[in-house]
Amino acid sequence: MRLVDDRHPQFVSLLKELYPHTGRAYILGVTGTPGAGKSTLVDQLVRAYRGRDARVGVIAVDPTSPFTGGAILGDRIRMQRHFLDEGVFIRSLATRGQLGGLSRSAGDLVHVFDAAGFDVIIVETVGVGQDELEVARLAHTTMVVMAPGLGDDIQAIKAGILEVADVFAVNKADREGADATVRDLEQMISQGAQMARAAKSPHGHGAARVDTPRGASGDRWVPPVHKTIASRGEGIDELIGACEGHRSFIEEPSRHEARRQLRVGAELRAIFENTLVEVARERLRSALVEGTSAIARGHDDPYTVSERLLTSLVVPEESP
Amino acid sequence: MRLVDDRHPQFVSLLKELYPHTGRAYILGVTGTPGAGKSTLVDQLVRAYRGRDARVGVIAVDPTSPFTGGAILGDRIRMQRHFLDEGVFIRSLATRGQLGGLSRSAGDLVHVFDAAGFDVIIVETVGVGQDELEVARLAHTTMVVMAPGLGDDIQAIKAGILEVADVFAVNKADREGADATVRDLEQMISQGAQMARAAKSPHGHGAARVDTPRGASGDRWVPPVHKTIASRGEGIDELIGACEGHRSFIEEPSRHEARRQLRVGAELRAIFENTLVEVARERLRSALVEGTSAIARGHDDPYTVSERLLTSLVVPEESP
Repeated sequence: MRLVDDRHPQFVSLLKELYPHTGRAYILGVTGTPGAGKSTLVDQLVRAYRGRDARVGVIAVDPTSPFTGGAILGDRIRMQRHFLDEGVFIRSLATRGQLGGLSRSAGDLVHVFDAAGFDVIIVETVGVGQDELEVARLAHTTMVVMAPGLGDDIQAIKAGILEVADVFAVNKADREGADATVRDLEQMISQGAQMARAAKSPHGHGAARVDTPRGASGDRWVPPVHKTIASRGEGIDELIGACEGHRSFIEEPSRHEARRQLRVGAELRAIFENTLVEVARERLRSALVEGTSAIARGHDDPYTVSERLLTSLVVPEESP
Repeated sequence: MRLVDDRHPQFVSLLKELYPHTGRAYILGVTGTPGAGKSTLVDQLVRAYRGRDARVGVIAVDPTSPFTGGAILGDRIRMQRHFLDEGVFIRSLATRGQLGGLSRSAGDLVHVFDAAGFDVIIVETVGVGQDELEVARLAHTTMVVMAPGLGDDIQAIKAGILEVADVFAVNKADREGADATVRDLEQMISQGAQMARAAKSPHGHGAARVDTPRGASGDRWVPPVHKTIASRGEGIDELIGACEGHRSFIEEPSRHEARRQLRVGAELRAIFENTLVEVARERLRSALVEGTSAIARGHDDPYTVSERLLTSLVVPEESP
């Protein structure tokens, strides 16, 4: 496992060997706002899936820096809860480092867990940035966890995650404002569904309709919203039911192939682009230092230097 | 302005022309957890800087998708508040799109504002992911905004932002738990400062010391923590005072040059790597589609396809 995470020279050959043995696991992405209680909810999901005799791997993507060592500490604390259970494996990834390196590392680890025979792989991320969206593309089902009363940025967050969410959990549902959060989400989902329908329909918007059905709706999936209280284990079975519903939906033969192409394409791009950037950094190390000095001295600008570096690295385009 | 954001073919030549006119503005990054009230705080900062006759540009980096149109709507709402004030310009950027494209777009816009003569440029981001860390590297001063009671993920967040924060604001300081949040932060900062000192000292850790001084401390900057209630305008002057203190610290001749090299280097890398990825996507469009099909059919794996794509794009390494 360490081979993968530490970018050991042998890791690529290992991953190539593992790849044909992947594709069996169900990959569940769990993301959402900080403070929503994702870790506790993920622990409950692990427990519930273990109760169904599934082997569960957890990849916790953690915005913690190597400096503070938080990821490793977190691993130890969380592993203790499932210490005697060989059907559970938890691994944290720190997000510092290269451009998009997170989604690549998480993707590599997913393959390792998958090839090792884990039935369910939960990829847990904190936040709502680009990284999380990349991770969402790796998952079969993306669950977004929210909590009541997280304030005025919630509009922005909800808008950003609406496209990636397959299932919503409103956790800490015993807190004040839980019903309002559920209502806000439901309304936003309905508007999104109506906009999607209107875009397809030649007749424009049609009558406003707030009671959009949840789950499979013809050829579309409308994300259901479930209330949970993870600290007391409440609402977990219903939440897993929603995930399994989405899993059945995407596994229907008519859409299985298209979904798979999307995920494979996203992963290929992530692997390729990260390798490309790694190679460029390695090859152009001294040119980058020289360019930086020239710009800092006012002799050049970063756009011109960037073009020069590009020309030195990339083969000339063939003339048609 | 639209030229830059929309990646018009002429935008690079425009940016090259602008570049020599940049370097005068003070760039303040504002990030932090969702729900902390960053937008309100930024509005107060704008108001306060306007009161000092500074022209202020705001770049709000928004995790909103083009689908929902939230960024544009947000712009309109926020612009209204400063509608009659020509000394304020607010522009939102949506974060969907390419790898790291956000930090590049934000960086380009910073140059445009800077060359246009804005004195203060506030770059506001939501969240704690990779994008925000990239944006932090563009700023002279990075302010991290938190609020009381955002729950159990706060440990992870604090650890991740400790390295990028120059100034902390605990906003909504009239809420329960504000003092505890301040205390937690202060303790974490002191531990970080002690670890940094211990790493430098040949005598190891030395005596534990929690009362680390805030602000400039010899050759180091220890981030101060300020309580604010942005909705009532409380604590804003003290917060700006802390930012100005940090600005003076980094502008001292002995460290000015090194800081500038770091920022220029980070920006050059961002511009170069994003251009490289754009060029690769354009040139390898059909190869990526073919590769995806081959992998989805089980004829190939993404690691092998990625290596093949790389060989076709990058010039062979010169033998020594």
